[in-house]
Amino acid sequence: MAMPKHVRIVEVGPRDGLQNEQAVSTEAKVQLINALSASGLVTIEAGSFVSPKWVPQMADSHQVMTQITRKPGVTYSALTPNLKGFELALAAGADEVAVFGAASEAFSQKNINCSIAESLQRFEPVMEAAKAAQIPVRGYVSCVLGCPYQGDVPISEVVRVAQALHAMGCYEISLGDTIGTGTPLHAQRMLSAVAEHVPMEQLALHFHNTYGQALANLSACLPLGVQVIDSAVAGLGGCPYAKGASGNVATEDVLYMLQGMGIETGVDLDTIINAGHDICNSLQQAPRSLVSQAALANKG
Amino acid sequence: MAMPKHVRIVEVGPRDGLQNEQAVSTEAKVQLINALSASGLVTIEAGSFVSPKWVPQMADSHQVMTQITRKPGVTYSALTPNLKGFELALAAGADEVAVFGAASEAFSQKNINCSIAESLQRFEPVMEAAKAAQIPVRGYVSCVLGCPYQGDVPISEVVRVAQALHAMGCYEISLGDTIGTGTPLHAQRMLSAVAEHVPMEQLALHFHNTYGQALANLSACLPLGVQVIDSAVAGLGGCPYAKGASGNVATEDVLYMLQGMGIETGVDLDTIINAGHDICNSLQQAPRSLVSQAALANKG
Repeated sequence: MAMPKHVRIVEVGPRDGLQNEQAVSTEAKVQLINALSASGLVTIEAGSFVSPKWVPQMADSHQVMTQITRKPGVTYSALTPNLKGFELALAAGADEVAVFGAASEAFSQKNINCSIAESLQRFEPVMEAAKAAQIPVRGYVSCVLGCPYQGDVPISEVVRVAQALHAMGCYEISLGDTIGTGTPLHAQRMLSAVAEHVPMEQLALHFHNTYGQALANLSACLPLGVQVIDSAVAGLGGCPYAKGASGNVATEDVLYMLQGMGIETGVDLDTIINAGHDICNSLQQAPRSLVSQAALANKG
Repeated sequence: MAMPKHVRIVEVGPRDGLQNEQAVSTEAKVQLINALSASGLVTIEAGSFVSPKWVPQMADSHQVMTQITRKPGVTYSALTPNLKGFELALAAGADEVAVFGAASEAFSQKNINCSIAESLQRFEPVMEAAKAAQIPVRGYVSCVLGCPYQGDVPISEVVRVAQALHAMGCYEISLGDTIGTGTPLHAQRMLSAVAEHVPMEQLALHFHNTYGQALANLSACLPLGVQVIDSAVAGLGGCPYAKGASGNVATEDVLYMLQGMGIETGVDLDTIINAGHDICNSLQQAPRSLVSQAALANKG
């Protein structure tokens, strides 16, 4: 229970970010991931092997993952909802995969068309195959601070799903405030409760900034000792449940805060700002990072 | 040193906000202040009596303050840099005035063309006249977490200026992160240091969101017991030191966070969101509040 000296950033822009933006070219994605690789990041979520029917923006994940220039020491991961996805990820050379559960029964039903219990069952063959292939598996829990369908999500449900993914063999559990409705004390309470059952060293925070609360929530959780934060360059990724709203917390803004708090990340902020400007040029939109906007304004 | 149960919001949008936007009509300002008055806010900074040469956006402060519909229980305040400004504010019916000092010598020189010591001297006749007229005076300290000219600002300087304004008779000292460069631990340290010399009940936080840190900084300071927060509807107000960057923290985003933390404000969030939409229509820009944007997106 002490402020961490070092935080590992898991960059989710190329996946969780871009899957919620208009489609960009494979080339732009490859350039983005290569630029991010040069920043000092050690974990980059590079693609998703889900049905292109559901997520057309990720249909070229195989091409992306085979065309990037891999930097030694960087883990390139991919989302894999089932065994088929896992096999495709493996074929594309993913260093790590992630499975995706929800703490909200309503969200699970609407989002992946099955109950939470059924979704956990579907992950079993992925876990087995990953173990055989010696590929680490990360577990996401979505809706940990609220659900677009059922509203409140009991913390006990978050604990239950996080615990199940941990018991199943996920080496890290990423706790997602999918719709960004959380506030600082709620985030603290949720993290504390989960950390009673899963070691803090194996927990990550994945907060969205839809209501502007993400940095406040992260800052409130850091003194509890959490050491891994998911974020997206340029705040990529809107919110599919509220068109036009903000998505993932911006890597730039997280880095700026951590730097100011004396917490090391090993990531170069300027390199991230530039990578964000480039991908936002491809998307023809302004970066959703205020640090990036301020940097641009200071130059102008 | 305990989380407050109640926070008073000082709405600075009509002054600190609009003085950094393109000019809007007197009518739009009056409508804005009347709409804010209906929200449950008890303090609204309604204008500024500085030279219209320097701040043309505030040239109609007399008309604004005499045309608004005053709601009993609401304090309508005005910025007054000197005795002349104070007399104009009094003539316009200001319930409260504010003086404006800086914790940065470089900022004081560039912004008001005198040293910190000279600026404090200039406030003496304002304090005397206000005392005679029984008008409470609020003291602003700018650049408490950084300066656009000198960079770092020693916390000891913030303490010194806050203490001087307090000793001079200011009933409340508002600590301004003028350029929004502060981060949570710095904000905490600064507030703690000032509170050793000025009672916490007489301190307010006035944070700008230029680097996206404002809510995180506020959230970090709340457990120290601070009970007054300055904010601007729709995040009005750019940053004059970085054109195109964000300005004041948005009242909507502060209210959302405080509500989620169980801290009462007495202010109705929806009324503020609507007031923000209306003034942003006049300004032909989107609200800089993410809560407001999410509310709009959820409707659409």
